[in-house]
Amino acid sequence: VIVGAEITSIRSPRVKAARQLAKRSFRQRARSFLAEGPQAVREALSTRGAAGAGGAVGPGYGAGGPVVTELFVTGAAWSRYAELAAQAADQGAAVHAVSGEVMAELAQTVTPQGVLAVCRFVDVPLDQLVASAPRLAVLLANVRDPGNAGTVLRTADAAGADGVIFSDASVDPYNGKCVRASAGSLFHLPVVVGTPLRQAAEALARAGVQVLAADGSAGLELDALESDGVLRRPTAWLFGNEAWGLPGDLLAVADQAVAVPIYGRAESLNLAAAAAVCLYASARAHRMPPPGRVPA
Amino acid sequence: VIVGAEITSIRSPRVKAARQLAKRSFRQRARSFLAEGPQAVREALSTRGAAGAGGAVGPGYGAGGPVVTELFVTGAAWSRYAELAAQAADQGAAVHAVSGEVMAELAQTVTPQGVLAVCRFVDVPLDQLVASAPRLAVLLANVRDPGNAGTVLRTADAAGADGVIFSDASVDPYNGKCVRASAGSLFHLPVVVGTPLRQAAEALARAGVQVLAADGSAGLELDALESDGVLRRPTAWLFGNEAWGLPGDLLAVADQAVAVPIYGRAESLNLAAAAAVCLYASARAHRMPPPGRVPA
Repeated sequence: VIVGAEITSIRSPRVKAARQLAKRSFRQRARSFLAEGPQAVREALSTRGAAGAGGAVGPGYGAGGPVVTELFVTGAAWSRYAELAAQAADQGAAVHAVSGEVMAELAQTVTPQGVLAVCRFVDVPLDQLVASAPRLAVLLANVRDPGNAGTVLRTADAAGADGVIFSDASVDPYNGKCVRASAGSLFHLPVVVGTPLRQAAEALARAGVQVLAADGSAGLELDALESDGVLRRPTAWLFGNEAWGLPGDLLAVADQAVAVPIYGRAESLNLAAAAAVCLYASARAHRMPPPGRVPA
Repeated sequence: VIVGAEITSIRSPRVKAARQLAKRSFRQRARSFLAEGPQAVREALSTRGAAGAGGAVGPGYGAGGPVVTELFVTGAAWSRYAELAAQAADQGAAVHAVSGEVMAELAQTVTPQGVLAVCRFVDVPLDQLVASAPRLAVLLANVRDPGNAGTVLRTADAAGADGVIFSDASVDPYNGKCVRASAGSLFHLPVVVGTPLRQAAEALARAGVQVLAADGSAGLELDALESDGVLRRPTAWLFGNEAWGLPGDLLAVADQAVAVPIYGRAESLNLAAAAAVCLYASARAHRMPPPGRVPA
């Protein structure tokens, strides 16, 4: 399945082109990004691209063409990842054997795992996410730390969310750190990129999805919303920047601001922890028996 | 309040001694660690040491002497942190003005905030935590990532936990990254260090505290425990290593293994997110009205 001989030079045009995808500007030009390690590569190979990605056209998320266009595998890891290589080749990807030095050049981790893919962008248009009648979604506004954003993406996936919207001032979801922190979840649920927050909130409102802003200083507490049944409604959770939260103009797009209660002396929760508590509160509320129905 | 002239040389004995506290072996010898930035320093200054810390003796956590023994402040940040410097001096700490270069040498962050303290260890013996009849505690086993451990500490504090136990194979809570990720919470609640897990679990059991292990592969789900009322009991949550979870011999110390349900396609939650969901489930259960009491 390998294309040509093992690449041993970091000056190889293939390696240089892939290496450039560590930079956002090059990613945006190529509409491609890097996915590192067997878990991410496996998820990428079992994903179909978004409608329209790479020229493919389809009626919805997952209806496009293959996501992986190139796969790099070290000689040392070859036998371990032979199945991934075969699968990539089957999907039409170019599979390259590379030296350890080349992998170290491509990978962004200290101890690369020997397999790395170039993937087409997988994000979907806002309209497509909204048309799917989401019951649980995430809106990120000004979230700048890629590790935090990736962790929220992973948590949203775990909580069964229907999509995550990276609003324009947030980190690029295709940033290597974000891809790694998402632990494959970038390939699991629809992701929307670069939509202005207000536009996203308005589209969600038209689709009957309430926007709840997680805001540590809000007077309303999460538990109250849960017992009032408010969390049973389709909900998009709005999370802001870890350091400075949500300024007034962003808070204004939300139907309500909600605080995760602080019972101890911590000033606040970090973003990933707050998102986990909020998203699982919604997931639980969505799965509760309707009120008035007494358990047998 | 300043002791002597501004220190401008990174070869100054005071600077070298403080700098060494970045290493665990030196921290353990000096029973001291570094707290960086105004938030951590402020929390350290408003904490009394653990009983016995620094020679002070007292009947409980927070009954010991001052925690801060030295404070370093840059000339540039002097006016901003004059109050912290005065407070430190009042508590008997040596306050040093230092150059930006010296601060850069001492600090472990890329953009140091101009104030840094040498603090006495604040951990307490296991017996002391157990004697306080904790309702909610955290047991960390083999948690190696300092950022994760610090975030769990912060989340435990937010959820109103009564203590966090770093079992012997876990990261050092005085590691700089852990201190920073805890966002001051290291100074807020009793922390126990270096107790073997089995010994900690047994002591908690004797005090009537159940041990629940968070384990993604457990058959029992968190929501079931919550509706069964099991979470109302005093609980210590056991969290394991992010990558490989809890091996059988560690799981065996727990009364039950519990999974946070995964509703989507994520393989698992990251440690900080799982801990947030579990700890807030307990916090909620502990605050619910007793069963049978119908709301008016």
